[in-house]
This record gives sequence, C-alpha cells and structure tokens, in this order.
Amino acid sequence: MKIVVLKFGGTSVGTIEKIKKVTEIIRNYQKKKYKVIVVSSAMKGVTNDLVKKSKEISGNFSDSEYDVLVSSGEQAACSLIAARLIHLGIKSRSWLAWQIPILTRGFHKNSRICQINKNKIVKYLKEGGIPIITGFQGINNDDRITTIGRGGSDASAIMLAKFFKAKRCIIYTDVEGVYTTDPNKLKRAKKIKVISYEEMLEMASLGAKVMQPVSIQDARLNRIDIEVKSSFIKKPGTLITRRSNIINNKIITGITSTYNDAKVTLIGVKDKPGVAASIFRPLSSNSINVDMVVQNISSNGKETDLTFTIKNEDLNKTRKIIVNNKNINFRKLLFEKGVSKISIIGVGMITTPGVTFRMFKSLANKKINIKVISTSEIKISVLIDKKNTKKALTALHKEFKLDK
Amino acid sequence: MKIVVLKFGGTSVGTIEKIKKVTEIIRNYQKKKYKVIVVSSAMKGVTNDLVKKSKEISGNFSDSEYDVLVSSGEQAACSLIAARLIHLGIKSRSWLAWQIPILTRGFHKNSRICQINKNKIVKYLKEGGIPIITGFQGINNDDRITTIGRGGSDASAIMLAKFFKAKRCIIYTDVEGVYTTDPNKLKRAKKIKVISYEEMLEMASLGAKVMQPVSIQDARLNRIDIEVKSSFIKKPGTLITRRSNIINNKIITGITSTYNDAKVTLIGVKDKPGVAASIFRPLSSNSINVDMVVQNISSNGKETDLTFTIKNEDLNKTRKIIVNNKNINFRKLLFEKGVSKISIIGVGMITTPGVTFRMFKSLANKKINIKVISTSEIKISVLIDKKNTKKALTALHKEFKLDK
Repeated sequence: MKIVVLKFGGTSVGTIEKIKKVTEIIRNYQKKKYKVIVVSSAMKGVTNDLVKKSKEISGNFSDSEYDVLVSSGEQAACSLIAARLIHLGIKSRSWLAWQIPILTRGFHKNSRICQINKNKIVKYLKEGGIPIITGFQGINNDDRITTIGRGGSDASAIMLAKFFKAKRCIIYTDVEGVYTTDPNKLKRAKKIKVISYEEMLEMASLGAKVMQPVSIQDARLNRIDIEVKSSFIKKPGTLITRRSNIINNKIITGITSTYNDAKVTLIGVKDKPGVAASIFRPLSSNSINVDMVVQNISSNGKETDLTFTIKNEDLNKTRKIIVNNKNINFRKLLFEKGVSKISIIGVGMITTPGVTFRMFKSLANKKINIKVISTSEIKISVLIDKKNTKKALTALHKEFKLDK
Repeated sequence: MKIVVLKFGGTSVGTIEKIKKVTEIIRNYQKKKYKVIVVSSAMKGVTNDLVKKSKEISGNFSDSEYDVLVSSGEQAACSLIAARLIHLGIKSRSWLAWQIPILTRGFHKNSRICQINKNKIVKYLKEGGIPIITGFQGINNDDRITTIGRGGSDASAIMLAKFFKAKRCIIYTDVEGVYTTDPNKLKRAKKIKVISYEEMLEMASLGAKVMQPVSIQDARLNRIDIEVKSSFIKKPGTLITRRSNIINNKIITGITSTYNDAKVTLIGVKDKPGVAASIFRPLSSNSINVDMVVQNISSNGKETDLTFTIKNEDLNKTRKIIVNNKNINFRKLLFEKGVSKISIIGVGMITTPGVTFRMFKSLANKKINIKVISTSEIKISVLIDKKNTKKALTALHKEFKLDK
C-alpha cells in the first residue's frame, strides 16, 4: 500500500471553513491513489479553553483527569473531519486512540507512544476508508487516556508513519515551511526546499518553532520523510529528510537568532569535578532556562571562567541564586543584559573549510563585536549586542547566499 | 453496599463554580456512608455548541460521527468533577462509557443501554473511590461510541441504579422538584412531595419537563425510587415511587395545561377501518404533532365526527393536507385557534367517585365552557378557550386542595 500520513494542526482545523478546506486536501491525496491516514489536533482555542477550566477547578489538577479533559478536543475535531468527508461521499470515520488502540508508556501528560495495533486500520484502509485518528493521545496499560507530552500530534503522526511504513508524513500547519531565518526578523528570508534532520534539529532547538525537536528526532531514527507545508496556500513546503537524499547542498542552510538574552560570566571559578553541576542545578530547579554555555581553562590551570546565557527577565533571580550559592567559589561575577545569539547552521560546513572565518569576517566588516563563540559539528553560534541582531542577520544571509 | 446514584444535568455543572458546588453534594453523601456513583451530563451550552458545529459541517451529518462529537462534552465534564474531588482529597476518577463498558443496542443517536459491566466499578467502589460516569452514552458491539436518544443522562442514571441495585437514584436539576402545576402559570403551585410513576408519566407527557417519560418508565419497570431535586437549593425534592409506597394520597396530584393549541374537527367522516390512519399518517410524515384525539360515532352509525388538537402554528399546513387528502371523505371541516388543554392527574381518582363531576362543576361555576373531553384511568383532560387557562388552573387547584 502507498500510504501517506497527513497531520493537521490546531490552526489548520481552527474553524468549520478551515475543516472544509482540509477535507479537500485529503480528497486530493485519495485521488492520487494514496491510502491516506489523517491525524488531527483539536480545533485552535479548544485546548486552551479546557486548560483554563482545569486551572479554575484546581491549582493542582490531577494529571490523569487532565488527559481525559484535553483529549476530548481531538475527539471532536476528528468527528467533524470524518463527517465532512462522509458528506462529500468519501468513506471515512474517526478512530479514537482507544479504538485502535495506540498504546503509550510513561506518566500522564507526558507519555510516549510505544505500540500501535495496525490490524483494524489496515483492514479499514483496504476497504477504501480514510481513518481520522486523534493526535496527541493514547491509552496506557490500565485503559486510561494519556497524552503525549512533547511533540503532541506531530509525534503521533511520526509514529503512525513509522508503524504503517508510510511513504511520507506531511505536517500541515499555518506556515509555508521552514525558512532560512525568521521572516518576521528578515524580509529576505527564503523558504528552504529541503533540509536534513540534523539541521532541522538545530534550527528547532534554536527557535524555529515549526516542529518540536523530539518529533524530528523520532523521524530521523525511523528514516521518515517529513514535509512541512501550509494547509491554506497550495505551494510545496519544506522536505525534512536524510542527508544522503540531499544534493546540491548549500554550505549554510539557515540562520537563527535569539533576542532578549543576558550573559552571565563567573571569573575565577575553582575548577574541580562537579562545579558546573553546582552552578546549574539551583538555576534549573528554579525554572531558569540556561542556553549557551562556554567554559575556558584559565592560564594557571586551577581556575576557570564560565559564561552562559539566560533570558533577560531571569537576571535578578539568577544573580541572587549565584551569590547565595554556598557550593561554589569564584572571584568575580559579571552580567550583561541585551545580548543576542546568532547561529549559522548547515551540514555543508563539515566539508567546507573557512566557514568560521567567513562568518567572523562578515560580522567584523559590519563592525559587530563578537562576545562569545560556541561551535558544534554543523553549527556556529556567536553572542553579539542585541542592537546589532538585524544587521548581523542581513550580513550573514548575504554572505552565505541564502538570499538566492 | 448502600449505593446511591447521583445524576447531574447540564445546568447543575454549567459553570466551574457550579461544579464545585456539585462536589460538595457528592462529598456529603460519602460522609453519610453511601457508596456514591455519579453520572454527569455535559456542561450547559457545550452540547449545543457542538451540535451547531455539526450543522455547519453538513446538513446531513453522519449519525455515528455525531455520537463521537457530542459525547466529548460529557467526557470533559466528568474529568472536571473527578479532578475537583481529588483536589478535595477524595478518591475519584472519571469513567468513560467504553472503559466500563456500558453497552448499548440500536441505532446511533438513538441507542438504549442493554448491559453494564459491573466488575471494574464494584472493585473501584470497594476501594473507596467515587466513579464519575459519562451519561448519555455507551458503546455498541463494534466498539463505536453511541448516544442515548431519549432520556439522555437520566436514562443512564436509571440503568446504573438498576444494574448496581442502588437504594435510590437522585436526579439533580435546576428545579426544586415536580410541582402540582407549572409555577410559571400559577404562583400557588406547590412542590409535590411524593408521586407515583404512573402519575409522573402523565405529568411528563403532558408537559412537566422535569424528566423524560422513557426514563420514568424504566424506573417504574425496575422499581427504582427517584428523587428529583435542585443542585442549588438544599431542600427535599420530589420522590417518584411505587403507588404502594404512597400513603395519604390526595385525589388529584397535579394539573397540567397546554397553550397555543388549535382544534380541528372533521364532521361526517365515512366510518370504515383505517380511516383514522388515513387522516393522521400524512400529518405525521409532515412532522405535525397531533395531541388529543376524540372520536364519536354519529347517530346513523355510518359516519363519525373526529376532533384532534395540534399546535396553532401547524394549522395552515394541516388544513392543506386534509383538504388535499384523496383517501378520506368528510362533510365539513371545522377549525378553532386558541384553545388550551387542561388535565387533572391522580391515582386517587380510581377509587374516588365524582371527580369528573367536581371538575366540570368547578369550571362551570367560573363560566368556562368545555369543548372536548377525554379521560384515562388516572387523568381527565378538557379543551377550553385559551383565555380561560389561568382561571381554570386556579379554580381546579383550589377545588382539589392542591394549594394546601
């Protein structure tokens, strides 16, 4: 069977009119002789409304009942899609996670799909039906409804694609695909036609909010081609696939930037095993998100300087926690608000020498000072003054020919 | 086990504040050492909103998907109630129909509960938990969600009371109980303390909208005591029970009235078998609801006069249908708009002679003309001028000492 999994997010099914459009998309795949499996999120706004109610009931709402509550949103959306297809004369029905079943492991609100029973759905596909499956949920061994913590309906779609060996998994959303950089920050940003899992992972963790990293990782492990595209505009989206499937690679695929970051530097930290953990544990337990971390051994080999970035608004809290931390010794504490992290990402840099130099030169030409540098195999990140963000994005976008 | 079934309607759980009140009621029964089974409807407005969406999707929305759609409302309500009880430190959880399961027979949108698997719930009750069960729904043999056509969540409550042999089934609603007559029409109306199933059936079919007749009939067949009471005001409600449980019976228990009726009379109808069917079949297929029907054989024995009532707004349509009906012969067609049906109901009239006479005399004293009379074992109905409705209600309410 030539199976395709189509996933529709909350905005794609946000109104009755949009649901009608979605069913046209589904119908077109059927016309192309695909066996179509549909996964849907709840209609936009529905989940938020249910979550609001849960907060009014209790500040400590039961996790298992939370899953029962919010999963009702997908149930309603799937029945509306299926009924519209039936209205159009197409064989279709909703399949709730417990009816298949989709089995999960882990805690409520944070489960992961571990098994999907294929029998009923395969039979239904062979009969020519289009199953509309509730995303974001499953059941556990006790027959209780669970929801998928990270990745949500995207994760459901990837796992369905895996178990049913789908040719492709198409994530329909409210953007046209993945861009070379945030189009809201740089008008010249271009849609990326094809990107590797690894690059997409870096882009996702760095702020391109198209898909959750956990779902991309699942797709990578199972070698599932993902296409991200708009459910409203009929244009090709972005294909996320294996590196070996990508020809004519550009050196750099995308550029990301953060905003409103603050830089914290501890000078002369006594370098002993576990010191980093001593610094970061209390920050983590106070829900302070630490992003970039850079550490240098100082000349005498006994001390180290440690720099990391946090959100601006966490600065005061962080300062207090570090000053009151009895488990660490350091000579000096430096803070700087209003910094921005610029990252260039591309598998091409592995085989192309001089990428780092080109990045630094390009920024130097614009008189942009680099405060901190951090690199990985397919990514180079630098910290600069927040006010230079747009100038840096423009310069790098041009330097690595992403405008073309 | 001393089991009580508590059923909460849509208005009883219509807001988060009301859900909090409902959990106080549940807690009080637990304190009284009852094993409590809760059945809930969807929050008021939720079902209507879902039905509205279904109409926007299709004028001919799939019945099976309709059941999936609307049943999501009870799922959400039950999770909110259970979570609130957990918040209060009480062991509770939602039980969706498929988790028990509650099995139904019949068509989608119009199923009836045929079997409830007791094992899991009995175990849960023994562990001290309070199960919050979705009303109005079940699953069929194909594991698909079904909804209960008539009676809705009331029917679920009665069937749970039956299968679990509950001491009592309490229907919490937005009224304080069943009244001697509609309090909106007659301020002197009094709450009825106890009423037989049979009387309640007559009251229900005649317009007292507290409970659906089908649920009362189920309770009667299974000898389940029902109490109807308000979830907002802490007062005893109305007990619906077996005749033999009722002492100090009044002759008349209640009075009902309809409004905006029209009377239709066919004079000189050829009296042959099937003539009534020939008249009423086309009315029924045009969704015209025929209420009271009275037929007299005329003096010559070959003709009959037939009178029935319909809603005022159906009058023109009815006239056309009858005039164009080729299957019937009659001499004359009479219409009268603006009539009202007054009925007195009471099991006491079986053993008390002269009730009919007292009713007619009482109306005659007020110079109210009786147009048509129809009687059953425990009910006498008369048709009068609409303008006399309140005068008649007042007179009869006094005559049969319902004011006391």
